[in-house]
Amino acid sequence: MNFGSDNQSGVSPRILDALVRACSGTAAPYGTDMYTRQAEQKIAELFEHDVQVFFVATGTAANCLSLSALAQPWNSILCHAQAHLISDESTALEFFTGGARLLPIATDSGKITPAALRDTLQRLPDARPHSVRPSALTLTQATENGLVYTPGELQALTSLAHERGLHVHMDGARFANAVAYLGCTPAELSVKAGIDVLSFGASKDGALVAEAVVFFNTSLAQDFDLRLKRAGQLVSKGRLFGAQFSAWLQDGHWLELARAANDRASALATLLQSHPAVRMAWPVQVNEVFVVMPKTLLAHLHAAGVLCYDWYPDSLPTGFVLGEDELPVRFVTAWSTSSEELDAFAAALAG
Amino acid sequence: MNFGSDNQSGVSPRILDALVRACSGTAAPYGTDMYTRQAEQKIAELFEHDVQVFFVATGTAANCLSLSALAQPWNSILCHAQAHLISDESTALEFFTGGARLLPIATDSGKITPAALRDTLQRLPDARPHSVRPSALTLTQATENGLVYTPGELQALTSLAHERGLHVHMDGARFANAVAYLGCTPAELSVKAGIDVLSFGASKDGALVAEAVVFFNTSLAQDFDLRLKRAGQLVSKGRLFGAQFSAWLQDGHWLELARAANDRASALATLLQSHPAVRMAWPVQVNEVFVVMPKTLLAHLHAAGVLCYDWYPDSLPTGFVLGEDELPVRFVTAWSTSSEELDAFAAALAG
Amino acid sequence: MNFGSDNQSGVSPRILDALVRACSGTAAPYGTDMYTRQAEQKIAELFEHDVQVFFVATGTAANCLSLSALAQPWNSILCHAQAHLISDESTALEFFTGGARLLPIATDSGKITPAALRDTLQRLPDARPHSVRPSALTLTQATENGLVYTPGELQALTSLAHERGLHVHMDGARFANAVAYLGCTPAELSVKAGIDVLSFGASKDGALVAEAVVFFNTSLAQDFDLRLKRAGQLVSKGRLFGAQFSAWLQDGHWLELARAANDRASALATLLQSHPAVRMAWPVQVNEVFVVMPKTLLAHLHAAGVLCYDWYPDSLPTGFVLGEDELPVRFVTAWSTSSEELDAFAAALAG
Amino acid sequence: MNFGSDNQSGVSPRILDALVRACSGTAAPYGTDMYTRQAEQKIAELFEHDVQVFFVATGTAANCLSLSALAQPWNSILCHAQAHLISDESTALEFFTGGARLLPIATDSGKITPAALRDTLQRLPDARPHSVRPSALTLTQATENGLVYTPGELQALTSLAHERGLHVHMDGARFANAVAYLGCTPAELSVKAGIDVLSFGASKDGALVAEAVVFFNTSLAQDFDLRLKRAGQLVSKGRLFGAQFSAWLQDGHWLELARAANDRASALATLLQSHPAVRMAWPVQVNEVFVVMPKTLLAHLHAAGVLCYDWYPDSLPTGFVLGEDELPVRFVTAWSTSSEELDAFAAALAG
Repeated sequence: MNFGSDNQSGVSPRILDALVRACSGTAAPYGTDMYTRQAEQKIAELFEHDVQVFFVATGTAANCLSLSALAQPWNSILCHAQAHLISDESTALEFFTGGARLLPIATDSGKITPAALRDTLQRLPDARPHSVRPSALTLTQATENGLVYTPGELQALTSLAHERGLHVHMDGARFANAVAYLGCTPAELSVKAGIDVLSFGASKDGALVAEAVVFFNTSLAQDFDLRLKRAGQLVSKGRLFGAQFSAWLQDGHWLELARAANDRASALATLLQSHPAVRMAWPVQVNEVFVVMPKTLLAHLHAAGVLCYDWYPDSLPTGFVLGEDELPVRFVTAWSTSSEELDAFAAALAG
Repeated sequence: MNFGSDNQSGVSPRILDALVRACSGTAAPYGTDMYTRQAEQKIAELFEHDVQVFFVATGTAANCLSLSALAQPWNSILCHAQAHLISDESTALEFFTGGARLLPIATDSGKITPAALRDTLQRLPDARPHSVRPSALTLTQATENGLVYTPGELQALTSLAHERGLHVHMDGARFANAVAYLGCTPAELSVKAGIDVLSFGASKDGALVAEAVVFFNTSLAQDFDLRLKRAGQLVSKGRLFGAQFSAWLQDGHWLELARAANDRASALATLLQSHPAVRMAWPVQVNEVFVVMPKTLLAHLHAAGVLCYDWYPDSLPTGFVLGEDELPVRFVTAWSTSSEELDAFAAALAG
Repeated sequence: MNFGSDNQSGVSPRILDALVRACSGTAAPYGTDMYTRQAEQKIAELFEHDVQVFFVATGTAANCLSLSALAQPWNSILCHAQAHLISDESTALEFFTGGARLLPIATDSGKITPAALRDTLQRLPDARPHSVRPSALTLTQATENGLVYTPGELQALTSLAHERGLHVHMDGARFANAVAYLGCTPAELSVKAGIDVLSFGASKDGALVAEAVVFFNTSLAQDFDLRLKRAGQLVSKGRLFGAQFSAWLQDGHWLELARAANDRASALATLLQSHPAVRMAWPVQVNEVFVVMPKTLLAHLHAAGVLCYDWYPDSLPTGFVLGEDELPVRFVTAWSTSSEELDAFAAALAG
Repeated sequence: MNFGSDNQSGVSPRILDALVRACSGTAAPYGTDMYTRQAEQKIAELFEHDVQVFFVATGTAANCLSLSALAQPWNSILCHAQAHLISDESTALEFFTGGARLLPIATDSGKITPAALRDTLQRLPDARPHSVRPSALTLTQATENGLVYTPGELQALTSLAHERGLHVHMDGARFANAVAYLGCTPAELSVKAGIDVLSFGASKDGALVAEAVVFFNTSLAQDFDLRLKRAGQLVSKGRLFGAQFSAWLQDGHWLELARAANDRASALATLLQSHPAVRMAWPVQVNEVFVVMPKTLLAHLHAAGVLCYDWYPDSLPTGFVLGEDELPVRFVTAWSTSSEELDAFAAALAG
């Protein structure tokens, strides 16, 4: 019963088969191979837009390299106060940008709102050359609380950001799950909603190791190949990424996988909600379930073999009062979570 | 007929099988999985020494992260004047170290000698705090010219370096080929010869994407996990590396692969040497053949479907006079280079 | 009527005379001159402690270089949410530290309290290697709101910090004003209260351009000369700093100057308080007066030739409600503020 | 008898007087004061060109900040193999540029020649994205060997550089001495000769601490104020620099000072040349005299109270054979070197 993280799941057979096929014989190095070309083309088609695509091995690299193209070292980058980027990626942002600054936006609702963005921008000191100057906004889709920005919500945020001269990046480690939840097109949730650059993650959705940086605003991609190389992220056997992405996107496989994960989370939430001592912290939209439960219950679940993590108290909705004996807990499902695991979990929860 | 680079070769079936097996089911993330543990243990056994091991996706990351643990930003790192690190890895060294400096050592012989190292150190200005202060030496094994440092040569260099307070790193992108050539033990060519940290590369020797940073001097590894994470190099599904390395090292498979590549290079060199217009630039010890040939001959080979690259004139031995119509050319063989390819090459060369 | 900032004031004649004397004839370069030696000795005597001292041209350099000795690039540094360092020094902290992160502590009282520090530390994620790890605390003395930490308050904070493995830096741009206010010894307000490193500023207190980094914990000063040089902060004619600091500290001149500035602020506050439309934002302890006033009154003062700046709404005490027509305004006095200026200000305020 | 360096000399009375006058009364901060405005205007007039000027405290900051505007972190900057920047400024260049690389040009003549520049550029690997890409050339005027580039020589170098897409910086720590030697206009030796940015140094020529970064190509100065602030180089009492530069440039004072220094060096060279055991290493054009002398003679001079430094063997002209008992020695004169000092030196040399 692994609900620790979707990055602990295995690899979808269709993706693995494609990878195996790509591993035989020689291929051009450094992303100039035919598998990579094919993946780039599929991504362009998927987003119905001219794109520049670069592949990297980790989400941290995807996010931070993306943002290094959007900020000078004297700029700040606005993000959600609980963004993965700020709490779980060390000071990688500072490393990749040469010392730009993350500027957290406090929110009540788990999502950044135009009002919160406007308010934050308004409070920033603006005394040249003393003040740090914002140059970018980064949004997480799905969010750190498992919520999904709608195309309209994104549009409102990106319009405001662009008005103020900020470019907009999306951390799409779970972009697939968001698209699967909304049923809209990938383009509607990114380029058509004003996103300039997307970290498009496959590793959490059935791939082995595969993250893409997708520039919709291709003028921002100038010299990105140099950034990639300089950061030690240019893999010699680039087919690793090309083969995975091609198979992942083929015939909507990526959405099938995401839908499966979302469905399991929904079922898991139903189980949890039925327990009298469990309180839901956030609505369940994608493949994450955030709850609050007694410490004793968590200990019981752990003892029963359930893998899940207690979570940051700061991640709870504003005003949510945590009992002294309670803990926030996060459950994540994956494409591979089985109904047997859910049954076993139900038994553990009841036991 | 691909003699472009060993990084263009495919993946050895045994390694690929192991990777496929590791891809099914869940596994602990970020290198805490059992595949990674197993690989770490095998590496310790291989080198007959306590080690700290970290896995990364590229040779550039392996080299530059290693050296970031050996140099403060105000230090310099001595390297061969044609080191891959200085000519082919952008300014990644400066990026990872926060701005340390590479200091090239000129050599006549293709290898750094104790005399050359001593001379370079002696010429360095030493006025504190104005001068850049050396803190590390990096050696490439096999070298940029396809030569191999013997244990005795290494010992002489590392002794001198340690005397002067320098730590020693080895770029072992082709360490396997060097071990295969000498027939010594891996330990004799590294930790027993005074190497502090090794970039141990598998990608060029039959793996897909797998590089290890191996600390023999484990006190230098303090906080290396933080460096790894901060550099966006900590892969979530770490079994990618663990599975490959385990299979690569199992039953001496890594040396079989390296020996195969070395043998093919030897055969290729024999073919080239027999051509009246071809001159050998360097002795052939591992899987690289450096020659000088007429431009017309290179054009002919390219037309016949031979993939190989013209090379830097600066890479030739001191005093080697290049004719006006000649070019240096590099050929690289791989574990997968077939006798059919060599036959076809012989025909192309004769044709 | 210049109440803009104490960094707009002129130079005390005693300091200027000493500087002039030091400018004739040759002197050893890069801080090895006798003026610098003398200043270092005076600083050691002043603080009754063994110290390592380094001189720089700006407060930003003093703060950020100091902190670069207290934080690795993957560390965070805790500071007051309105610290000068975070709001007025661009991303210099990130530049000098190679990308460490500032972590603001929210406070109600204008000063960091042990409770606020403890709470902040407790909320920090602590998942190695993903989380940013705190390594230092920086305190501003006097604070951003013109308040003074007492020795007891400092001791409580530094004890807690040291317990948690954090070193403590003090931004002492107005350290002189704080000592003058409390009437304690400089040692009681720094080394005896647990401060490890002090940015000891003279520029705002009668000097021309002179800031000292004073290490009480001298083991932290290792390689600081290299940091200084590398940052382009090692001035060749170092007597510039040595001469100023010697004269500044001679016979308590530095405290005379600070007392004068504090007294003028006190008088200014009395004038402001007497105005019915002016509200005090913070108690006046040193040479800064923070008030809230109607926008029309500020415009009137500006028109009458008063130089002062409207201030950040975020700098107001928690719960302070700003009227729609009101603005926070900061007044700063200097050693050179004259009674004539105060009289003229009184007239302007009344007019 | 101080021939150690012109940065050990005192301050010219005219400059000091101006500084003293500027130190009384309040002034606008951060370089917005009238002294700074006046200095900027004088610099524009001096160079007969629209300029953007920024003042800093050290030559290292002037050089490295300038070059940070001319190079991305993945670029290289070509410089003379003995450039001060590469041998005496730690890794400040890497710090300020975020990790760009200095690329030394070997020369026979002590000056970079178009042939040497062309040859170096031609030898650079050019494989995108692996190779480091040159973006700037920096020239030292006068050079590290006390030689002066003529306007024609500069023009030839800058034309070639611009053709190849490189911007050109001049390290003008002794620019005044070069102009005094040639008798041309400052413009002829800089902007008219194709220089884009000049580090214009006054500290070695009679000022206290005053270096200007002068952009002739003003489009390169965009955001330079932010670089300055972020590097902790924006001095609050900016009149320090403004007052010095205004007085330095007033009525050709700067050239009087430089001429005096040059003349003394010429006289010193005559004395040295007359000694049978002394060999001239380089022609004497400005205020530096490079000779080779027996170690015993140097010891004798030191014992007699002569301050001068033995110098790098690598700084000698190509092919210059140093005797076993000989040492290269550098003598520097200043605006303040007196005839009495020269007489005393003559006596010491003879004694």
